[in-house]
Amino acid sequence: MAPRPARILALFAVLAVQLAVLPARAQNVPVTDWTDADLATAAALRDRALKGTSAFDHVSSLTTEVGPRLAGSPGDEAAVRWAMNRLGKLGFTGVRTQDVLVPRWVRGSTEVTMLGPAAQTLVAATLGGSIGTGEEGIEAQVIEVASLDALNALQAGDVKNKIVFINQRMERTKDGSSYGSTVKNRVQGASVAGNLGAVALVIRSVGTSDERFAHTGRMVYDMSAPRIPAFSLSNPDADALSRQLKTNKQTRLRVKSTAREMPPAWSANVIGEIPGTDRAGEIVLLAAHLDSWDLGQGALDDGAGVAIVVEAARLISRLDRKPSRTIRVVLFANEEFGLSGAKEYARLIGDEQAKHVLAMEADTGIGPVIRLETQVAPESLGAIEKMRAVMQPLPVPVEGGTNTASGGADIGPLRALGVPVLDPVLDASLYFDVHHTMNDTLAKVDAKVLDQSVAAYAVAAYLAATKQGDFGRLAPVPFDR
Amino acid sequence: MAPRPARILALFAVLAVQLAVLPARAQNVPVTDWTDADLATAAALRDRALKGTSAFDHVSSLTTEVGPRLAGSPGDEAAVRWAMNRLGKLGFTGVRTQDVLVPRWVRGSTEVTMLGPAAQTLVAATLGGSIGTGEEGIEAQVIEVASLDALNALQAGDVKNKIVFINQRMERTKDGSSYGSTVKNRVQGASVAGNLGAVALVIRSVGTSDERFAHTGRMVYDMSAPRIPAFSLSNPDADALSRQLKTNKQTRLRVKSTAREMPPAWSANVIGEIPGTDRAGEIVLLAAHLDSWDLGQGALDDGAGVAIVVEAARLISRLDRKPSRTIRVVLFANEEFGLSGAKEYARLIGDEQAKHVLAMEADTGIGPVIRLETQVAPESLGAIEKMRAVMQPLPVPVEGGTNTASGGADIGPLRALGVPVLDPVLDASLYFDVHHTMNDTLAKVDAKVLDQSVAAYAVAAYLAATKQGDFGRLAPVPFDR
Repeated sequence: MAPRPARILALFAVLAVQLAVLPARAQNVPVTDWTDADLATAAALRDRALKGTSAFDHVSSLTTEVGPRLAGSPGDEAAVRWAMNRLGKLGFTGVRTQDVLVPRWVRGSTEVTMLGPAAQTLVAATLGGSIGTGEEGIEAQVIEVASLDALNALQAGDVKNKIVFINQRMERTKDGSSYGSTVKNRVQGASVAGNLGAVALVIRSVGTSDERFAHTGRMVYDMSAPRIPAFSLSNPDADALSRQLKTNKQTRLRVKSTAREMPPAWSANVIGEIPGTDRAGEIVLLAAHLDSWDLGQGALDDGAGVAIVVEAARLISRLDRKPSRTIRVVLFANEEFGLSGAKEYARLIGDEQAKHVLAMEADTGIGPVIRLETQVAPESLGAIEKMRAVMQPLPVPVEGGTNTASGGADIGPLRALGVPVLDPVLDASLYFDVHHTMNDTLAKVDAKVLDQSVAAYAVAAYLAATKQGDFGRLAPVPFDR
Repeated sequence: MAPRPARILALFAVLAVQLAVLPARAQNVPVTDWTDADLATAAALRDRALKGTSAFDHVSSLTTEVGPRLAGSPGDEAAVRWAMNRLGKLGFTGVRTQDVLVPRWVRGSTEVTMLGPAAQTLVAATLGGSIGTGEEGIEAQVIEVASLDALNALQAGDVKNKIVFINQRMERTKDGSSYGSTVKNRVQGASVAGNLGAVALVIRSVGTSDERFAHTGRMVYDMSAPRIPAFSLSNPDADALSRQLKTNKQTRLRVKSTAREMPPAWSANVIGEIPGTDRAGEIVLLAAHLDSWDLGQGALDDGAGVAIVVEAARLISRLDRKPSRTIRVVLFANEEFGLSGAKEYARLIGDEQAKHVLAMEADTGIGPVIRLETQVAPESLGAIEKMRAVMQPLPVPVEGGTNTASGGADIGPLRALGVPVLDPVLDASLYFDVHHTMNDTLAKVDAKVLDQSVAAYAVAAYLAATKQGDFGRLAPVPFDR
């Protein structure tokens, strides 16, 4: 969704009204959260972003010059160099890396074949973290189940020596909430099937597209379960397998993968800052992740997020009226394979954690931002409404929200330490079409939509970095992911 | 486009008017092309098809139980068995095969890598008929050109020992007419590049989608040119290569293919008939092709065509009022690799060619049919307008057309012998998104749209098989494709 002229006009109307009432309010109302000049600067920043930013160029450069960047791969190394260079060139200060040890999994080759009158090669991906099958592969009869719950309800006798096929479709939703209910097939499926004696797991991709792409993503083996290889099928291929099973219950699959675990490798978080003025020791953190899955170019996941937070910070650095707090951009290592960078950052943070006033993350594609969720001290919710009022023309609703947002995976460890989070919610209707597939390319990035997201992040970051008083602290909790 | 209730109502209105005027016309106007009963039967046939046909089930069965069926492959053999069984079960008569010797090309594996700070694997397809590179592959600098004409304008010095990249985008059109102007890159590119000393050819896919699928298709080596391997890149990958070349003119590619030519193999045309009544020796031929490319399931190309012509004929066989001519369905072998089946059919036809009153082909996807083109004797154009009037509610315009239609590739040899052709033009706006890709699957087939195409083909075939008098003959020409 691109910002339309009507919205921009509406915004000027709002601004005009605000400016008209400024003198009266300035005289009668004590400044609590922001001065009117702060709010006017944030509104101007928003409009500046809507006129066009360099965000698309950041994603284009990262996806073209680096491309795929799975943790620990040569692409990951190249991405760290790219980020250092780019933040330096853009005028960030304190550009530095933070070494992070990351697991290294190598996909190798994947082959899934549906046997029958004529063998058909299915479009499949080995799930991230899966063991391989060995060169000989595995051939077995298929048993189809509708969900992980349905699998859990089976007896070992139904499953033993078979290939389990979990055929549950992820439905399209605007906020991506359907991901949570299907991703467990990917994460836990192999261990549940392994415990029942299955020889391999095949799932319908956790993704919404009917294009023929398999969605990868991380799976995890339970300590106690036999390890079996795990694969996903594209939606059309899951359809084909299910149709074949309807006419022939004895349908067999042959699966082969040369996936393997390698020794851990060094990667790095890349950090750069826009220094604050009078409260430079206090930090507003903007997060995205630098790694990507190996199949695609990582344009949406998470090249777009990198571009949004880098560009939001860059636009703030160009303002005449600088923020009083420091804006710190952290491009985390290895989100996909277990949040290594996020955990290491939180581990190293020490006393500085109390200086983290707020954290925000961008990791659900290009946008647009459709609302602003939070998890802040309840006393700050009035300030949040003022923040949303500046975003309203994007449009973002001023009211609503449950103040229970997680904020995203990479800022999870900070949130667990008590750091409040803002969560600009991006429209994810199309995100799960390309998420974790070969099709996550620059062709799916709309520069105008990305600019709108930059506008929202820039407003939120600027206002967080200028706010009188903080957003409180959350109750610390153990971080167990 | 699905038939809407409004259209169906409109059709009943048209019918009511026709029925109201029938007696008067029947008394005053001599029957020339069709009786009113013929026309009413055709209209009822159309409405029967719009209510829902078995066409989707035919495509589903072919793509699920057989899948890819490249000429000479095990899938091709399975497809011939499938077609024999299906035509038999549906009640066709004279179900038989006609042996056809077909070339056999095997794709093997394809790897195209863009070298740079981090090597990126590009989504590519070896073009059909290309030689392989050997296990060692080929690595060379890339030279980008905008078109085949631009390549033709270069000197050998510019191209020698390089990999030529023809970066011309196929534009989206409703009738697919943009295919003709870009497909020459695929067919002739390798020989033009080879003559200039290039070591390999890479083209932007001849296809309209921005999904990450490479489009394959046949290429041909000139006798006189050095043979070099030829590849296509998906549109997003062609974009990526072009962007990389903008920042680094020295960009190199590594290409590898294990493609190879095998000895020719036996395949078959599959033929079945709906026998005519008083003119059973005269034939209306309905054509589609049974082979497909190896990458996809061949759902649109040409599973849909097979379903349309089989189902149109089947619906006609269920009428109380049988056609006087015989309707012959021919599912041709090996359209993709040089029309082997079509040429063999025309070679074997002998004296029977004069008995072929008309030919029609379905080979541009699922539809809907948007107009009816022709190449018939000019005296028959009045009859064509009457035929279109029955199709009008689909909607199909009654007027227009240039009477210069080719009718399609597989009926080309018949047309060259002088057989007139009807050419129901299918909406091809989306066809070239999936054409010749891995993404040509059943997920792209809309049963309702397919039913509309069946309606159009059934009406045309029925009226052709009942028409008083024929459609004339065309001037015979050499068939040189």
